[in-house]
Amino acid sequence: MAKPLLNKLVIFGVGMIGGSFALAVKRAGLAKHIVGVGRSKENLKKALRLGVIDEMADDIAQAVRGADVILLALPVGQMRRVMCAIAPHLEAHTLVTDAGSTKQDVAAFAKECLTSHLQHFIPAHPVAGGEQSGVSAASADLFVNRNVVMTPLAKTDKKAVKRIKDLWLACGARVCEMTTRQHDEIFAAVSHLPHLLAFALVDVIATRPNSARLFSYAAGGFRDFTRIAGSSPEMWRDIALANRKILLKELAGYQKQLKRFAGLIRKSDGAALKKIFTRARSARQRSLLGK
Amino acid sequence: MAKPLLNKLVIFGVGMIGGSFALAVKRAGLAKHIVGVGRSKENLKKALRLGVIDEMADDIAQAVRGADVILLALPVGQMRRVMCAIAPHLEAHTLVTDAGSTKQDVAAFAKECLTSHLQHFIPAHPVAGGEQSGVSAASADLFVNRNVVMTPLAKTDKKAVKRIKDLWLACGARVCEMTTRQHDEIFAAVSHLPHLLAFALVDVIATRPNSARLFSYAAGGFRDFTRIAGSSPEMWRDIALANRKILLKELAGYQKQLKRFAGLIRKSDGAALKKIFTRARSARQRSLLGK
Repeated sequence: MAKPLLNKLVIFGVGMIGGSFALAVKRAGLAKHIVGVGRSKENLKKALRLGVIDEMADDIAQAVRGADVILLALPVGQMRRVMCAIAPHLEAHTLVTDAGSTKQDVAAFAKECLTSHLQHFIPAHPVAGGEQSGVSAASADLFVNRNVVMTPLAKTDKKAVKRIKDLWLACGARVCEMTTRQHDEIFAAVSHLPHLLAFALVDVIATRPNSARLFSYAAGGFRDFTRIAGSSPEMWRDIALANRKILLKELAGYQKQLKRFAGLIRKSDGAALKKIFTRARSARQRSLLGK
Repeated sequence: MAKPLLNKLVIFGVGMIGGSFALAVKRAGLAKHIVGVGRSKENLKKALRLGVIDEMADDIAQAVRGADVILLALPVGQMRRVMCAIAPHLEAHTLVTDAGSTKQDVAAFAKECLTSHLQHFIPAHPVAGGEQSGVSAASADLFVNRNVVMTPLAKTDKKAVKRIKDLWLACGARVCEMTTRQHDEIFAAVSHLPHLLAFALVDVIATRPNSARLFSYAAGGFRDFTRIAGSSPEMWRDIALANRKILLKELAGYQKQLKRFAGLIRKSDGAALKKIFTRARSARQRSLLGK
């Protein structure tokens, strides 16, 4: 793997993901100068203080000038605006990539805003993070052994994909490729739906008059189940809306499953319940724990 | 707190809960002799080998004779059978307690099977455990800082409650009291429903043709969300049926919430979604993390 040395890396959104990318790329010795851009001056100052970025910028034209790579590590609801803002200032060689959790919408925004630059746009999704946010949660190790899903467009240049891929590999990530649609279908099932379900459960309890008492009896299982309900509301609102169509299909399938569960409980069908619980437990042990 | 020294403690079901109780009580120096009874000879032999129990028994009359305390640490579907089996052999002074995850049904079984012994029956629920099971998962520390909910019946002798309470305190637990109904309502919301939801999600994915691929992209959030779907299928079938009425009500409330979510996503009501997600996140941080 050739060292893809970057003279200038620009990161829009220096939160946990953007900040961790900066730290990991810097540690690998692959970026000379890292510029951060973002909505919160406070957060950018902290990023500067922590040595995550070398410079903070608020003039977009100036920030983008001479960049080798631009990473958009923003809630997907911000992508379109930022893509349109950077488009007029992009140099031909500059690669633009993103870290959005949905890919069909990001690809559509790129087709709209980065029209003449599409061969150098490489959509990607580092599957890492968690319920924390902001640059204080950034870590050079965040992507080690994590999946990064790249979803190049038909027009995306193969060499550009390779360069971005090499950056992620240097961060310790595992990289794979699929279409934007495949991506959105997979993550609707294993990420977007579970987040909705966790927010839904916590809210059902939080809005009851005796919620404090209920929460006081919640044990480790509840805590783990709802950990993802501690995630960024803005980010998850954006994801829910961006992947609306597929997510609604997943939600409908899940509602059907709950209806089935309710039916089995109502008629006391213990055998069927046990069969389903056993199948679920085995699948989880086999697939997630390698047992 | 006077040391409630037990000459003979009998544990029906030497799994994670029963075994941990044995280890904790023994460490506190409160039991001279611990007898284990259970369905699996293999598991009892292991318990003996690990020093969790001092004796394994399969003759119920002999096991129960001279017992100061009998703990029923069984899936709730087994409670009625075991209560009826021990009833004819109980001595007047013997205290019977349990560790079942539901309490109204256990109380009803006791009223049916332990009729003449009700003043010495003390229903309780140690809120501890997890997705592991069997005596190998037992630990003397399992109950440290965990809640034990005691749900004495109208007829239960107050001194008997105090003696069992002292045993749990000696295990490091926090002890509280409520009615069987209050217990079943609280745990339907914060434990039984989440377990159903986790089993439901894993099964929805596990039964698809591309399940292996889907699971391979599941990250930490999915893993934590579904951890409780690794729990004992038998135990959770029993709980779902034992607490059927209240659980169905909880399930209906949750289905209503999902319907609402689907409606908001369908009409792209980002403001309402963000409001709910924010409320849920704050409630969780405040109530579970003390932030």
